[in-house]
Amino acid sequence: MTSFHAIKAAADRLKGHSRLTPLLSSPFLDEIAGRQVLVKAECLQHTGSFKFRGGWSALSALPAEQRTRGVLAYSSGNHAQGVAAAAAAHDTPVVILMPEDAPAIKIANTRALGAEVVLFNRATDNRDAIGAELAEGRGLTLIKPYDEAEVIAGQGTVGLEIAFQAKDLGVTEADVLVCCGGGGLTAGIALALEQDAPQMCVHPCEPEHFDDVTRSLASGKICHNISTAGSICDAILTPAPGEITFPILSRLCGPGIVVTENEALHAMALAFLRLRIVLEPGGAVALAAALFHADQLDGPTSIAVATGGNVDATVFTEALRRFG
Amino acid sequence: MTSFHAIKAAADRLKGHSRLTPLLSSPFLDEIAGRQVLVKAECLQHTGSFKFRGGWSALSALPAEQRTRGVLAYSSGNHAQGVAAAAAAHDTPVVILMPEDAPAIKIANTRALGAEVVLFNRATDNRDAIGAELAEGRGLTLIKPYDEAEVIAGQGTVGLEIAFQAKDLGVTEADVLVCCGGGGLTAGIALALEQDAPQMCVHPCEPEHFDDVTRSLASGKICHNISTAGSICDAILTPAPGEITFPILSRLCGPGIVVTENEALHAMALAFLRLRIVLEPGGAVALAAALFHADQLDGPTSIAVATGGNVDATVFTEALRRFG
Repeated sequence: MTSFHAIKAAADRLKGHSRLTPLLSSPFLDEIAGRQVLVKAECLQHTGSFKFRGGWSALSALPAEQRTRGVLAYSSGNHAQGVAAAAAAHDTPVVILMPEDAPAIKIANTRALGAEVVLFNRATDNRDAIGAELAEGRGLTLIKPYDEAEVIAGQGTVGLEIAFQAKDLGVTEADVLVCCGGGGLTAGIALALEQDAPQMCVHPCEPEHFDDVTRSLASGKICHNISTAGSICDAILTPAPGEITFPILSRLCGPGIVVTENEALHAMALAFLRLRIVLEPGGAVALAAALFHADQLDGPTSIAVATGGNVDATVFTEALRRFG
Repeated sequence: MTSFHAIKAAADRLKGHSRLTPLLSSPFLDEIAGRQVLVKAECLQHTGSFKFRGGWSALSALPAEQRTRGVLAYSSGNHAQGVAAAAAAHDTPVVILMPEDAPAIKIANTRALGAEVVLFNRATDNRDAIGAELAEGRGLTLIKPYDEAEVIAGQGTVGLEIAFQAKDLGVTEADVLVCCGGGGLTAGIALALEQDAPQMCVHPCEPEHFDDVTRSLASGKICHNISTAGSICDAILTPAPGEITFPILSRLCGPGIVVTENEALHAMALAFLRLRIVLEPGGAVALAAALFHADQLDGPTSIAVATGGNVDATVFTEALRRFG
């Protein structure tokens, strides 16, 4: 299991490579929430999401000989970009397995970051079988998106930064709201704060109809989503909390918070207007919880992790059209 | 004249109050420019622009007794917000003189920041006479937007940060591109870098048809713009470089760079896509110069100051529609 020690070790490996992203605020957001709101802007991380941290952490933790053979990831989104950029910086061969119907721009960007992209057909190919064959044949190491100790450790460095950045502002007691898919980031932050800011309470935040973590925490056992498609919050749609992440979430987190798609879009428009940052819908879920679900929170301060900003112009424009 | 010492003193007064804004980058922007591009994201500063620094610096430099009586600023834009927020934090009364045809949202925002807004009619009122009467009658101190030593000192703290943040990345030799109106920020940065990063060369950047600083530098004497309206880059339209700023610019800066409105809009769209920050047109001029005018630059690295992000959704959407 990932430990606080592993998070500190990941922070050492990330030093000088990941960005210390700012903790932003606006009196206009405080007024909406009825309390102080701080926003950890991980959309400003390399490749536009916190995933760079986990990718770097996992890669840099590999024995050099194993790393030299290369790594593999399945993703059409932020995890792919994060692993690809981290691998390029380590001069490590990287294969990203992507569905052939992924947006052309995402495929092009992943290639531009130096990755070899292998496409598969969602309907007719078995992704895991293709991955296993590639891994075995070429000696690649699979880097899973969340249920992997060193990935969780890397994401946990966000929590270390939240603790000391908040303390600099005089904040030690807070609700920490985290956009949650499989729970790697949420678990990592919760482990970091357990040591460095024990008066902070972490809440996973999810889009409606994809609230597997909220239900799992409420029931005490892993619950699944019926689908992993059909929300604009595509970055955080996963089937269920992970085998490694769930026990951590269960031990350390407060109740989950569920927001609507419209609340996520509204939070994107407010982040544009008041913080001047670009959020994708899945990256705005925690801010939406802070702004529109304050009745479910107790603390004097809400710290929302803005997890990613990789969004198409059309989706962003729609958020501004509805709520700008 | 503002000195390096005054900038360091302003930095001490700003410590814990202004944000250390990040120095961002993207391999995709490097590729467009054909060299390394770093972006100092002052759009993430309090109130969405660097103006907060100058406002805070000027206010905090006043004798307490004078500050208590209050301050006055003329502006419908970023300077007004910066001074208003700095004054609120100092518990100082602040009057902002704004044209009555200013956008309602800007008037509302300035009031929400705690300022008393006095409206005047551009056609029939004499702004300076109203301001002088207010200042005399109520003992208010006028804080000018750029031609004021402590304002320049405050803006110069951006230069101190650029020097040490770039050094952390191994960069000591660079062209530093600054969106330039009256020259307060550009002068302050140039003074800071003269001491802290002498191998960096500052270039003022302006929109076409409003290139007073570029022409002034080329001719060696202050030149005026024909108009101060009619560009989407409204944040940086001023009649001419200042009496205090011009000698500094003249002594320390390289040639100015002039960009088109379309280049500024294109830079906004690329900042959205590659850096996940929101820029206003006037705040994107330096990035446009870095990306599209690299042929006018010598250094291995271009550092563009992204000065502000206060932009209407309609203008932002138009940038994405054309270039997203």
